[in-house]
Amino acid sequence: MNVATHATKPGYPLEFPKNQWYVAGHAEDFGCDLKSRWILGEPICFYRTQDNTAVALADRCIHRQMPLSKGFLQGDNVRCSYHGILYANDGRAVEIPSQSSIPEKCRVHRYPLVESGGLLWIWMGEENAADKSMIPGHPWLDDPKWKVVRGTLHMKARAQLLNENLLDLSHLSYLHPGSIGSDDVVSAPTSMEFDERSVRVTRDMNNAISPPMFIRAMGLDGRIDRHQVAEFIAPGFHITHLDAKATGQAGAQVFSHKAIHCITPERAHSAHYFWAITRNYRTEDEEVSRLWREGAPRVFTEDIDASEAIEEIITAYEPGYPPELDLKVDGGSLRARRIIERLIAQERRA
Amino acid sequence: MNVATHATKPGYPLEFPKNQWYVAGHAEDFGCDLKSRWILGEPICFYRTQDNTAVALADRCIHRQMPLSKGFLQGDNVRCSYHGILYANDGRAVEIPSQSSIPEKCRVHRYPLVESGGLLWIWMGEENAADKSMIPGHPWLDDPKWKVVRGTLHMKARAQLLNENLLDLSHLSYLHPGSIGSDDVVSAPTSMEFDERSVRVTRDMNNAISPPMFIRAMGLDGRIDRHQVAEFIAPGFHITHLDAKATGQAGAQVFSHKAIHCITPERAHSAHYFWAITRNYRTEDEEVSRLWREGAPRVFTEDIDASEAIEEIITAYEPGYPPELDLKVDGGSLRARRIIERLIAQERRA
Amino acid sequence: MNVATHATKPGYPLEFPKNQWYVAGHAEDFGCDLKSRWILGEPICFYRTQDNTAVALADRCIHRQMPLSKGFLQGDNVRCSYHGILYANDGRAVEIPSQSSIPEKCRVHRYPLVESGGLLWIWMGEENAADKSMIPGHPWLDDPKWKVVRGTLHMKARAQLLNENLLDLSHLSYLHPGSIGSDDVVSAPTSMEFDERSVRVTRDMNNAISPPMFIRAMGLDGRIDRHQVAEFIAPGFHITHLDAKATGQAGAQVFSHKAIHCITPERAHSAHYFWAITRNYRTEDEEVSRLWREGAPRVFTEDIDASEAIEEIITAYEPGYPPELDLKVDGGSLRARRIIERLIAQERRA
Repeated sequence: MNVATHATKPGYPLEFPKNQWYVAGHAEDFGCDLKSRWILGEPICFYRTQDNTAVALADRCIHRQMPLSKGFLQGDNVRCSYHGILYANDGRAVEIPSQSSIPEKCRVHRYPLVESGGLLWIWMGEENAADKSMIPGHPWLDDPKWKVVRGTLHMKARAQLLNENLLDLSHLSYLHPGSIGSDDVVSAPTSMEFDERSVRVTRDMNNAISPPMFIRAMGLDGRIDRHQVAEFIAPGFHITHLDAKATGQAGAQVFSHKAIHCITPERAHSAHYFWAITRNYRTEDEEVSRLWREGAPRVFTEDIDASEAIEEIITAYEPGYPPELDLKVDGGSLRARRIIERLIAQERRA
Repeated sequence: MNVATHATKPGYPLEFPKNQWYVAGHAEDFGCDLKSRWILGEPICFYRTQDNTAVALADRCIHRQMPLSKGFLQGDNVRCSYHGILYANDGRAVEIPSQSSIPEKCRVHRYPLVESGGLLWIWMGEENAADKSMIPGHPWLDDPKWKVVRGTLHMKARAQLLNENLLDLSHLSYLHPGSIGSDDVVSAPTSMEFDERSVRVTRDMNNAISPPMFIRAMGLDGRIDRHQVAEFIAPGFHITHLDAKATGQAGAQVFSHKAIHCITPERAHSAHYFWAITRNYRTEDEEVSRLWREGAPRVFTEDIDASEAIEEIITAYEPGYPPELDLKVDGGSLRARRIIERLIAQERRA
Repeated sequence: MNVATHATKPGYPLEFPKNQWYVAGHAEDFGCDLKSRWILGEPICFYRTQDNTAVALADRCIHRQMPLSKGFLQGDNVRCSYHGILYANDGRAVEIPSQSSIPEKCRVHRYPLVESGGLLWIWMGEENAADKSMIPGHPWLDDPKWKVVRGTLHMKARAQLLNENLLDLSHLSYLHPGSIGSDDVVSAPTSMEFDERSVRVTRDMNNAISPPMFIRAMGLDGRIDRHQVAEFIAPGFHITHLDAKATGQAGAQVFSHKAIHCITPERAHSAHYFWAITRNYRTEDEEVSRLWREGAPRVFTEDIDASEAIEEIITAYEPGYPPELDLKVDGGSLRARRIIERLIAQERRA
């Protein structure tokens, strides 16, 4: 029997739940001009009002689907460039140049937004259900004791590939040997915890090899004790907690990092990747900041390249799916997959 | 409820009726060589015989689908470049080099053509139904008292987007402010007439602002009286009747134009845009001709850009359709849409 | 009735049988590094072991679909670059770095291969059914009395277009007049033989025109006797037997060639074209070798161009198919089409 022809299970999902907060970008990405960004297959027009409040409107005029982002700002309102309808920042039309009356239905969806931690969070579902307490905690992004460097990447593959990549860090040994991986990561024992919407995979490595990026950024050129937790909060927020210190030295400095990965589906087969690396050491040292600002995207691009290669394979088998074997190390990733599937199923029932 | 997820109506049609005359191009586009052009999703091979008669044959050899346009002319016949079948200009094979008998079925469809007004008209449906009297009148294109300038554009969007664009000229104020639009176009009162296959939207503007193109081409640098009729004759022929004169001057010269727009579907998501601007003033003035020859495609490209932006949006929602709100000014456009839908429905029944 | 809208028969198949030998490439294409090639819509990772044995494994790790060809060789084993699974050359995992046990199912399909005639043959179906005796004979490729020149082309069209092209050589007169075709090829009488899996079309031309390539390579600048057999062995191996000699000269030298064409579907709408020209004359003459090495791909590219033009046409009519008329000369091609269809039907039943 040719194994190549039989699908055994559904595989990486293409769909994502809507009643969730997604990161729409870094706060600094948005200014007093119109910017189009697609999220979960919807075109969205972003801008800031004169008092600096971020606004997100459906990026298609309710009249004839013209992207509002092709229009222009008039004060805090957006003028469509096709027939001139003027929308206020709550999405309601306030002027229709060709007629005096404004129908109640002449409005575009306004997406709830929250700005926090230097990130802009967007709610893609029913407005009434938007609950700010659902936004994952991210104290390090606002804390002056932690230095933050940031960046944005884009991936031509389904978002879930990165969600699962980030929960199985055994790949560090093979995909990132030149930076943050070493031979002993893959074999380190792990433990997993989860709840309704989050997963944590812990990996402790004592007396471990110090990988190249640790030597450069932390000066750890001997054996190290490395403590790593991969934390996922649905639908796409990741915190990689990483502590490292020199092995066997009582009271040695602990170098702590929180690597933040915000994986936001753009369309079914593409995703935004907004990242931030925070650290609690040498926070004023621009050389260390530069190492992370330049080094992190090189590492993450290796993950994107792998994901895009996998996307090409699985797309070729659609609508089927090639056979796939789960390993013990996949417990965290599969738990995250189940959470996404359950959230989608809940929305379908509702 | 997220407004983004609910389709409310069918929206711009993708399909077009076949038993209709479409403009295949400007007469001057076709010479004594083979030219391929797709219309309504069909590949067509055009050429002229030695007596200058235009010919349109299905651009796929009946034997093995080779485009005849890749072959060569032998006198008035076309030789397929694959296995050498020779077709006469009525579509019948007159030679099959590999055999002596020629089956009756060895022929390709010959499309009825009419050359008139410097345009080549093609009938895409049943040959017997081709009725020349259905070709819309276009006297200005043949009248020496009118000067004609012409051109061709292409659009990567469904044809109906332009058909509706041309019937709601309230967009001039916003999409074309640098050329033919002014602030007062959008608010001018309109009236609409229609019959089984045509729509006319009239817009009168007295004591109006003279837009930049009018100042340059007509020298109208004060207030103007502007009379405009957007006329659509199904399935894709438009005449924009435009008269302008200086306001309040008894006996002032009336500058008349007939802007001809021939919107021909190429494939489902693309269209040909053959245009001509005719005028009855300074007909010998090459500078005015140049203004229109260069200025008109700049204006029409703004319409194409808008249509392509809209196409990207609505394609992303297929097979659904995002919600859309009709305004009072859409009466003419929607009437045209209804005409196309009715013509398609009639053909399906037949 | 518009002939353009009615499909009359299924046309060129898109699918191919799996329980068959296909040529995966020239033996010299594969070395001690990982090479990805898609065949019949499946990604395959090729390499050679240290004893030079060719290996073909499914090019997607059974764990998470990562292409193995992005990994690296360790001796005769392949290490996946994502999570480090190490596969032996029989497709079985021999190491899973993140766990000590190796599940029986942790393996990828290993495709049976045979290296012969400077070609690498791959079996795409059930391993147990792989019968080496099904490989078509090709003695000239291994015989020092025959000189071989080789090359590889790629086509963005379904493979069957070339299979049928090669069985109806009446196209030589029109598609290849500058090289191997002459006016009298098309009208020469043919005869056809076939069995369960092969087709032979014989064409004898006495006192025929010598085409340009024959003059250059063989020095035949007068009339020639040309004997040509187009032989197809399913699913995609062709031998064009070509003998030429000067007409009317008793005992004149016979210039013999076997043109080998290996048409291997890559994906549904693309194909590999591995070719070899063998000849039994002036085998040491590098100038003649150069003529064929450079001239053959020029000829075959004309076939590819025609096939790609046809592919564009028939794809536009999918899921229907435009009408098509068979001629007498198509007997061989249609027989090959029937063989492919029958092989697919047999596999579906099984």
